Amino acid sequence: MKQHTSPVKTVVVYHSGYGHTERMATAIAEGAGAVLAAIDSDGNLAEDAWETLDGADAILFGSPTYMGGPSWQFKKFADATSKAWFEGGWQNKIFGGFTNSASINGDKLNTLEYFFLLAGQHGGIWISMDIKPANVKASMRDDLNRMGSYIAPMAQTPADASPEEMLPGDLETARRYGARVAMIAGQFRSGRFQSS
Amino acid sequence: MKQHTSPVKTVVVYHSGYGHTERMATAIAEGAGAVLAAIDSDGNLAEDAWETLDGADAILFGSPTYMGGPSWQFKKFADATSKAWFEGGWQNKIFGGFTNSASINGDKLNTLEYFFLLAGQHGGIWISMDIKPANVKASMRDDLNRMGSYIAPMAQTPADASPEEMLPGDLETARRYGARVAMIAGQFRSGRFQSS
Amino acid sequence: MKQHTSPVKTVVVYHSGYGHTERMATAIAEGAGAVLAAIDSDGNLAEDAWETLDGADAILFGSPTYMGGPSWQFKKFADATSKAWFEGGWQNKIFGGFTNSASINGDKLNTLEYFFLLAGQHGGIWISMDIKPANVKASMRDDLNRMGSYIAPMAQTPADASPEEMLPGDLETARRYGARVAMIAGQFRSGRFQSS
Amino acid sequence: MKQHTSPVKTVVVYHSGYGHTERMATAIAEGAGAVLAAIDSDGNLAEDAWETLDGADAILFGSPTYMGGPSWQFKKFADATSKAWFEGGWQNKIFGGFTNSASINGDKLNTLEYFFLLAGQHGGIWISMDIKPANVKASMRDDLNRMGSYIAPMAQTPADASPEEMLPGDLETARRYGARVAMIAGQFRSGRFQSS
Repeated sequence: MKQHTSPVKTVVVYHSGYGHTERMATAIAEGAGAVLAAIDSDGNLAEDAWETLDGADAILFGSPTYMGGPSWQFKKFADATSKAWFEGGWQNKIFGGFTNSASINGDKLNTLEYFFLLAGQHGGIWISMDIKPANVKASMRDDLNRMGSYIAPMAQTPADASPEEMLPGDLETARRYGARVAMIAGQFRSGRFQSS
Repeated sequence: MKQHTSPVKTVVVYHSGYGHTERMATAIAEGAGAVLAAIDSDGNLAEDAWETLDGADAILFGSPTYMGGPSWQFKKFADATSKAWFEGGWQNKIFGGFTNSASINGDKLNTLEYFFLLAGQHGGIWISMDIKPANVKASMRDDLNRMGSYIAPMAQTPADASPEEMLPGDLETARRYGARVAMIAGQFRSGRFQSS
Repeated sequence: MKQHTSPVKTVVVYHSGYGHTERMATAIAEGAGAVLAAIDSDGNLAEDAWETLDGADAILFGSPTYMGGPSWQFKKFADATSKAWFEGGWQNKIFGGFTNSASINGDKLNTLEYFFLLAGQHGGIWISMDIKPANVKASMRDDLNRMGSYIAPMAQTPADASPEEMLPGDLETARRYGARVAMIAGQFRSGRFQSS
Repeated sequence: MKQHTSPVKTVVVYHSGYGHTERMATAIAEGAGAVLAAIDSDGNLAEDAWETLDGADAILFGSPTYMGGPSWQFKKFADATSKAWFEGGWQNKIFGGFTNSASINGDKLNTLEYFFLLAGQHGGIWISMDIKPANVKASMRDDLNRMGSYIAPMAQTPADASPEEMLPGDLETARRYGARVAMIAGQFRSGRFQSS
């Protein structure tokens, strides 16, 4: 049963405007052992990145939250997945996502919900977080899941802060979520081979 | 034109589990010059509160966010508004909302979006906030709109903090939003008399 | 490896006001080989149903869409799951959902999105549909997924139609979704045993 | 009081991929007496259209629903409104929206909710529909609001149907919504002059 020992293929596909989302993507990819696929400033993805996505067990969507939703560059990528949609090629893949914005809330939940709807259009399986929110008086700004998000991780970086100034807790939360998604993707794959 | 000088009738209808949402409701009512109508722990509202709602120019919905949405007591009230829905009695009223929860995000956006959908079912008019988020490095926890919410105000109070410990900035944000909703409701009412 | 042959435990937990959602719940349970757990008209669930839920591999949430969201009775159940939430007892369970309403859209998407947020609060895994929408000129009202839903099945029954008059296509869509959720839950369980 | 007699300035800003949304935009503009501003296939808007938007009393957002949300071209426009956002230039404007897709549901609610969140980011006022859904057994496909939408109108056109084949009821629903938004925008404007 050679299949069980081959590594799970996980891809983080993301757009980053100023480097914050990219740093979060890198943290998630570290946790997941994932390949990074960057959407460029015109909303395009390299041809081989599309092939990597088609062959992936798990796909993680990432974008800043701009004007209450994912960036237009991410949406251009999402619209281009209609090719995979027509063929049903992404059905039963494992999905997750992440976002960063300057405001504490800033409608980030809407960006994550959009990632989920996109995964749903493809007939996918969504993995939520398993880290309880840090929401008591003693909670610190570097705690895990200080943002109190559930369906996927959020990071918050002030409008005038560089990627280097992102909070360690936000990045560690992202890293652990990446590891979780990859682990669950591995379980699903083992189970699939098991049943066949 | 006596109508123009009569005060705008604004009602804050809310459920509060432990007093935090009630304190926020009181702040909003102060700003709006509004009557308070409390939904009780069984999800019921006094008969005269229903009459007050029917006669209101503006209605503000308030609830804690529990398990990712408004409390069941608020939803019981919402379901009971189907009587007004059938009669179209709340059409063209002005609506707004507010919520509090322990987590910074905690899916609070979903509670506010539900309030909006409820207002939409009634054919209402929704008033968003006009206070920019406090989202730079120098932002303080007592700033106005530190939560970075747009469609309506959010408050965040740690799970182990009492209503007395709510942040002054959250409450002042709520107060100003109440004032804004009442002012716009007044403008809309004047305009209606003007056109007729 | 006796575990692999024991059946997957799936529960359909639902509230039904007038029998339509119950008929849909029954169709889903048939497909999934699931136990039915009915939330009563006071929003309560029998004690043994809570135990069944705690022991389940997969949970399917069902409710009519009333006033733009799940019924208050369902929300009362959702709020009561905060006990399981505190203990993290439902983490990594498989989740899905379904809803019925009189209007074609009628904000049913919001009800399904709420079910997803609830699953997310519990650290769950959500299974979307794999049936393409019937959306061409030749599409018939009895087609599978004529509602064009993605994240979970919807049924639509006119306000003056009885449960007996529900559309066969809506019910068959529900049945197949139930089967899909149970199959994926089985794969995931096999994979878990495999890895351990 | 010359201001009261000057016409309300309403703009329909939209992207259309294959002409269906454009036909819906035209119906709304007829009802509202609005100017049309088309976002092109690269997601750009003519410079004078931006000036028209800045000077408008009411703005109606339109887009097809692609992959569960507004088209990327619309989102590129939305991201470009961040200039107006920084200046607070669109605060207190009246907003509405509309969408078309091939599937009956097809996550169209998410597109409309995004339009609302965008309006909210700008501190706007959202106008919901006032046409009850056609949701009884005797309802016909050409009825007003046969889609059963509340926060704004939806149209549904099969994937293989041309713009000419759009349903008259969907277009008339759009036209009436346009008229409603313009009328309410007029009331607000009259009220504003009244109070100052």
